[in-house]
Amino acid sequence: MPQAIGDDVFRSRIRVYWEDTDAGGIVFYANYLKYFERARTEWLRAAGFSQQQLRVDRQVMFIVAETRVRYLLPARLDDELEISVVRIDGGRVGMGLAQQAWRIGDDGQPQQLLCEGEIRIACVDAGTFRPCRIPNDLLDALE
Amino acid sequence: MPQAIGDDVFRSRIRVYWEDTDAGGIVFYANYLKYFERARTEWLRAAGFSQQQLRVDRQVMFIVAETRVRYLLPARLDDELEISVVRIDGGRVGMGLAQQAWRIGDDGQPQQLLCEGEIRIACVDAGTFRPCRIPNDLLDALE
Amino acid sequence: MPQAIGDDVFRSRIRVYWEDTDAGGIVFYANYLKYFERARTEWLRAAGFSQQQLRVDRQVMFIVAETRVRYLLPARLDDELEISVVRIDGGRVGMGLAQQAWRIGDDGQPQQLLCEGEIRIACVDAGTFRPCRIPNDLLDALE
Amino acid sequence: MPQAIGDDVFRSRIRVYWEDTDAGGIVFYANYLKYFERARTEWLRAAGFSQQQLRVDRQVMFIVAETRVRYLLPARLDDELEISVVRIDGGRVGMGLAQQAWRIGDDGQPQQLLCEGEIRIACVDAGTFRPCRIPNDLLDALE
Repeated sequence: MPQAIGDDVFRSRIRVYWEDTDAGGIVFYANYLKYFERARTEWLRAAGFSQQQLRVDRQVMFIVAETRVRYLLPARLDDELEISVVRIDGGRVGMGLAQQAWRIGDDGQPQQLLCEGEIRIACVDAGTFRPCRIPNDLLDALE
Repeated sequence: MPQAIGDDVFRSRIRVYWEDTDAGGIVFYANYLKYFERARTEWLRAAGFSQQQLRVDRQVMFIVAETRVRYLLPARLDDELEISVVRIDGGRVGMGLAQQAWRIGDDGQPQQLLCEGEIRIACVDAGTFRPCRIPNDLLDALE
Repeated sequence: MPQAIGDDVFRSRIRVYWEDTDAGGIVFYANYLKYFERARTEWLRAAGFSQQQLRVDRQVMFIVAETRVRYLLPARLDDELEISVVRIDGGRVGMGLAQQAWRIGDDGQPQQLLCEGEIRIACVDAGTFRPCRIPNDLLDALE
Repeated sequence: MPQAIGDDVFRSRIRVYWEDTDAGGIVFYANYLKYFERARTEWLRAAGFSQQQLRVDRQVMFIVAETRVRYLLPARLDDELEISVVRIDGGRVGMGLAQQAWRIGDDGQPQQLLCEGEIRIACVDAGTFRPCRIPNDLLDALE
């Protein structure tokens, strides 16, 4: 069963294309980090924030400080996946997120957990890469 | 203006994520080939065909034989793009496709042509990579 | 200082190209998993084993079961990096590896630790993806 | 036989890793554009120029304006490839390059032509992306 249902779980769907697979016939494991990031980007967008605007207008960027990922089952070409994002902790300059990738079944519902992990991101100045505070309005929007 | 309006132009939309960009601040040029392929995959899916099923059940695959791409304007992080596919010629074992990438404007409509190209694909046996005939039902579905 | 000098630390060097960077001007974090894998591949090759041969001739593959990576400092376009591999534990079907990425300085020596992690790989049947024993001669060669 | 032997042909070698392959068991076709670019980068480096320095110190970048690529034979995991670069024409703001990818045989020599293409690159201001003149010392070094 996917991550606990609730307002605080964000979900977005992606499709597996040729570019994502490797000679083993399955999704190349590093690509789940891309999927997780796409979902975080859509999560921020759903909260009203574009990372391009954050970078250009506010001079802040999120960088990834740590990733921990467990690979349980392989995804294959043409699979549809649901990627989830839940904030599990967070302070003024960083936050921890739990993310999962589920394969969508024939009934259109998440069926098998393929991959899960914890990602720690930090807010930095887009020029110097020094840690800085997450903008207040962004933090408020994520509450 | 996007490729001539008509039943024979297939369009699908994608979003530019961090993974797609390079240190120039724009989409890495090789990634347009990925975008073009995602659109071809969705075009086949819209016609009722999954490439994973073609490969596993029918033992056929499409490979790319030739690409010609012109890069006109850069795309950036968070841009939404419309990718089009038009079949421009085709025989029994291969076909030529014209593809374009347009940036979607604030009004939700294609606004600027960023990249365009011609892609030649060929049908091969999934085991031997020898040329083979495109399945009849697939050709019929694309008419 | 790089991982403890010793016969059991394998090192290989790579160069950062445009394809590796993102719009932040630095190496996209998921790409360190690619760098780590290239180093593991060269480590196996140095022990006399090609993964293509393992897959085709022996029907075995290594899959990644878990990754844990900490990102300390960014790498940039044109940087030369040294990637290390050390086996930290291992049984009959899997093993744990510690890996690091160091930036090479002007003197040609590793200068700054950029990224480090632990990777757990498992040996599986190349057809069924079921866990299987690591070939004895491979285990012997890694001792 | 590889591109005409001569001082004006630059060659560099790369290895095919898991990250380069797709579920067809071969190198994903878009990745030859990455290989071609790595070779162009090493060609510029051999002439004494780092693109990172060109970008940061001189405010100029090369962008790709057009690519034309023909895919002849597939490369596979663990293959070693030789990538060549020859300048075929060039003015003050751009140049055309012919590039090939050959598979290295057991004797360590290029054996089979896998892929070839023509790439047109243009020099632009790194901030505005407007066309600008290729630095004289770079042009001189490439003669």
